[in-house]
Amino acid sequence: MNQAFIFDVFGTLLDWRTGVATQLKHAFEMRSLSIDPLAFSDYWRALYGPAMDRVRSGSRGYVRLEELHRENLDETLQVFGIGDAFDHQAREDLSSAWERLPPWPDVCAGMARLQPLGFLAPCSNASIAMSVRMARYADFRWDAICGAELARDYKPSPSVYLAAAKALALPPERVVMVAAHNGDLAAASQAGLRTAFFPRANEHGPGQKTNLVPDGDWDFVAADLSDLARKIEEQL
Amino acid sequence: MNQAFIFDVFGTLLDWRTGVATQLKHAFEMRSLSIDPLAFSDYWRALYGPAMDRVRSGSRGYVRLEELHRENLDETLQVFGIGDAFDHQAREDLSSAWERLPPWPDVCAGMARLQPLGFLAPCSNASIAMSVRMARYADFRWDAICGAELARDYKPSPSVYLAAAKALALPPERVVMVAAHNGDLAAASQAGLRTAFFPRANEHGPGQKTNLVPDGDWDFVAADLSDLARKIEEQL
Repeated sequence: MNQAFIFDVFGTLLDWRTGVATQLKHAFEMRSLSIDPLAFSDYWRALYGPAMDRVRSGSRGYVRLEELHRENLDETLQVFGIGDAFDHQAREDLSSAWERLPPWPDVCAGMARLQPLGFLAPCSNASIAMSVRMARYADFRWDAICGAELARDYKPSPSVYLAAAKALALPPERVVMVAAHNGDLAAASQAGLRTAFFPRANEHGPGQKTNLVPDGDWDFVAADLSDLARKIEEQL
Repeated sequence: MNQAFIFDVFGTLLDWRTGVATQLKHAFEMRSLSIDPLAFSDYWRALYGPAMDRVRSGSRGYVRLEELHRENLDETLQVFGIGDAFDHQAREDLSSAWERLPPWPDVCAGMARLQPLGFLAPCSNASIAMSVRMARYADFRWDAICGAELARDYKPSPSVYLAAAKALALPPERVVMVAAHNGDLAAASQAGLRTAFFPRANEHGPGQKTNLVPDGDWDFVAADLSDLARKIEEQL
């Protein structure tokens, strides 16, 4: 076996918005808080990029994504004015919502189909521990856990893609980065990896305007992961 | 899930001696060489400790185990006087014999039984890439790949065990090191991990004198991996 498929996870494989909002809804109801869980999820998630930027720019050393999520949760609770309703343990529990996310419906079948064709690994900004817990919850079967923590940096820094190829002992051109995000693929391609795109038109909810279509010359473009597996099988 | 079982691989899970010798036998027969493949395997393997010692002592920077195996193969071929029979590609192929090793008969059933009880990961001196290839060959299902490469050092250095616990985001005492080697367990225990032992009385062939019995106060002692899984289930 001399190729690998590495995956973006949040958005590409897992429906983080619905998953996080469902768990928030439960937490808010238990406390009789009338907060829109989707609005809360979106705000929380929007802090993710800027928090990683501080690591990517070098102004902060590498810290795992769960720590960033936890800090961003504190800020989001404050912005929504409900900080008093969540003690330390409740915040820890809420923060781990990111480890319990549902896969999109095509994912498990698509991964089973790709499994004989190459090594499969996440290449996410999640830590190893988060990736492991997300995989157990969603029943993913990974060959290895790649991603941010191996490089101690965050995508789209090229070191993250290159660390994945190196960990698998494959040249970058034998590794296909699979993502529903054009920016992720542009960076992977720049680092010498091959690329596969399919859209997740509802990742950010019904009003989503970005990543609806491929905007680069990706090696594979598909409707979803099952369709991608079919296209890759045909090419062999 | 708040515990993990991490495993020594060569010897504990995989029968490296039979596996390597079977592949050597084939390579020798193809070349009409009358060399005892078991004697060759044993010599090759015996160079493994001293090669790692140079990394452990700091006199050489971290290099992956496959590189050490490859260098040691060159030396072994020379000692057996058959260097001329193996060109570069043949040496590469032979070196990868360590990625195609049969599991002991109890392993797959035992791992399936442990799987619901905790995260499962190798904690071997093999690299990530070797561990991935060995797992595909033996049909192991790992949650993550831990081991030497995460720490860029070799067991029994404490950093290797601690890096595994850290990668899984578990305190050392929630991680059980499983090995058929007392020395491995002594080091893991020293680093704060729990320990599980079962013997592999034929790892080194019929004359084996070491590691036939536990020689420390390990948390679990069993007959094999299936028996260990049973004992751990009973304790819950």
